[in-house]
Amino acid sequence: MTAPQWARAHTNIALIKYWGKKDAQLMLPANDSLSLTLADFYTDTLVRFTDSIATDQFALDQQPITGQPLAKVTRVLDQVRQLAGITAPAVVTSRNHVPTAAGLASSASGMAALAAAAAQAAGLTLDHPALSRLARLGSGSATRSIDGGFVRWFAGHNDATSYAAPVPAAPPLLADIRVVAVVFSDQPKAIGSTAGMARTAATSSYFPAWTQRAAADLHRLLPALNAGDFVQVGQIAEGNALAMHAATWAADPPFTYFLPATLALVQGIQVWRQSQGVPVYATVDAGPNVKLLTRAPHVAAVQRWLAAHFPTAQVVVTQAGPGISYYPAGKEVDA
Amino acid sequence: MTAPQWARAHTNIALIKYWGKKDAQLMLPANDSLSLTLADFYTDTLVRFTDSIATDQFALDQQPITGQPLAKVTRVLDQVRQLAGITAPAVVTSRNHVPTAAGLASSASGMAALAAAAAQAAGLTLDHPALSRLARLGSGSATRSIDGGFVRWFAGHNDATSYAAPVPAAPPLLADIRVVAVVFSDQPKAIGSTAGMARTAATSSYFPAWTQRAAADLHRLLPALNAGDFVQVGQIAEGNALAMHAATWAADPPFTYFLPATLALVQGIQVWRQSQGVPVYATVDAGPNVKLLTRAPHVAAVQRWLAAHFPTAQVVVTQAGPGISYYPAGKEVDA
Repeated sequence: MTAPQWARAHTNIALIKYWGKKDAQLMLPANDSLSLTLADFYTDTLVRFTDSIATDQFALDQQPITGQPLAKVTRVLDQVRQLAGITAPAVVTSRNHVPTAAGLASSASGMAALAAAAAQAAGLTLDHPALSRLARLGSGSATRSIDGGFVRWFAGHNDATSYAAPVPAAPPLLADIRVVAVVFSDQPKAIGSTAGMARTAATSSYFPAWTQRAAADLHRLLPALNAGDFVQVGQIAEGNALAMHAATWAADPPFTYFLPATLALVQGIQVWRQSQGVPVYATVDAGPNVKLLTRAPHVAAVQRWLAAHFPTAQVVVTQAGPGISYYPAGKEVDA
Repeated sequence: MTAPQWARAHTNIALIKYWGKKDAQLMLPANDSLSLTLADFYTDTLVRFTDSIATDQFALDQQPITGQPLAKVTRVLDQVRQLAGITAPAVVTSRNHVPTAAGLASSASGMAALAAAAAQAAGLTLDHPALSRLARLGSGSATRSIDGGFVRWFAGHNDATSYAAPVPAAPPLLADIRVVAVVFSDQPKAIGSTAGMARTAATSSYFPAWTQRAAADLHRLLPALNAGDFVQVGQIAEGNALAMHAATWAADPPFTYFLPATLALVQGIQVWRQSQGVPVYATVDAGPNVKLLTRAPHVAAVQRWLAAHFPTAQVVVTQAGPGISYYPAGKEVDA
């Protein structure tokens, strides 16, 4: 064990969605996914292993957390303890900088920061693939939050082969891609993503075709990123997101995360894009909010269009973010 | 040729959707479908073969029709002429009793009435399977409008084997099933059903799975009808409709016939049904309007709920309707 440091990890938005597991125990996804790590939204986490307590303790934004969220934290810590050959419980302190208003899940940044902080505190020297495997045990999407920029999560076929790695993109794509988060609801959704994913995988008539579709989309997205072709990237991401949501409509019973406003925005963006030629594409995760992908020169036009058509929605703009970083404990890391 | 009579055919609503052809030339659908013929909405058609004109003439509601709609009429007439060994052009007079406000396609009743009227005028004695094959050449859904009640269209593998036949249902299902049409828009849709179907079949990642899903749904629906189990029938029909629309979201480019109001109504009905136990299920064709399936005792409650939640939508209630019938020409057949 070494002197603990704060670890910071950023959340991410998937362009090729993770939707469905092939092994829930090992947290192996049914398909490879690909995301963009986001600036501005991150979690800082500090882990101290200590024999002075009996069981793991977890505080998020100064609130003690128990139950299922704590169980996921302990799952990651157990793996770290096993790798490091230690048995001490841990005190985990986390600070989320993922505003609810952004409509982005904080589990990706939270579990990635936990993996990095716990490994560091235990004195383990793990490379990014190993850290992403560790983060995966806490939350699937966290696998993609160890690295910055565009990140691919290889589904793999066992713990060792299911990890993430950065994907190259031709300049200036990474520098000028922008994500405009449009938030209609910050209410908890009726069906959580774990349950929705499980229902889709178990009952949707389209689940096998979804996993094939996701693989095909990924293999078109990689060259589009490599060429820096934003329009191709946007089209592939939008189509992939809609295909994921289509798979939930074919589940038994059918369900959707879309609200009428979600549909109105996706349709409105498609019509606006076609009529005005603005490069802006929609992606939607397991919830009603929409993230628009565009390039820096078009952000102001997108904001004006949103203000005119969806005046009550909350809008947050961000860009590509970095991978994990570390800060000495005791030093103020809050923004 | 015999003294021409008016033929009347009713439109239908599919519980298992027809969506996609396996042979556009022969008008063979990719999957079997199953519908309910509707009372109240029908087309009356009179055909007179005469050598006094040079080409087929078609008037719908006293408006001369040319172009693609006339070409479909001629396609049906050509088949009748071939079967009857005649060459005379035809004068086709049609009167639609399918109000735009009902949001129901009139092509099903129109082409079924045409097939029956043309065969009768040509002196052909065709049974219902043969008439449904004839109607199929004009419009796929017309195949199911020769018979009344619940009707199955066997996809078949050539012209001879692609036809419809009635399906039995245990009383009182057929007598008390009700269809509540909820109309949000009577505007022509951006993508017609023929084009939408073709794009789905050619590009949707989910099209092969859709045809398998439709087959599975049909084989669950038949015993549910046979048992008179309305709840099962409703669940299967709703799931099938949503799966059809999900397939369009996975097309390239993706598209949907849903408006935000369509989604709001489908979701609202699902929540209301679960909380109040009212047996009411939604189905949606290639357009934004919703048809609710319920039983007679619940129609008033459904109407009250619609008036409270969708006060601007037009609502039309109907029930199961009969198969084709004939009326002497010269006698007034209008309602």
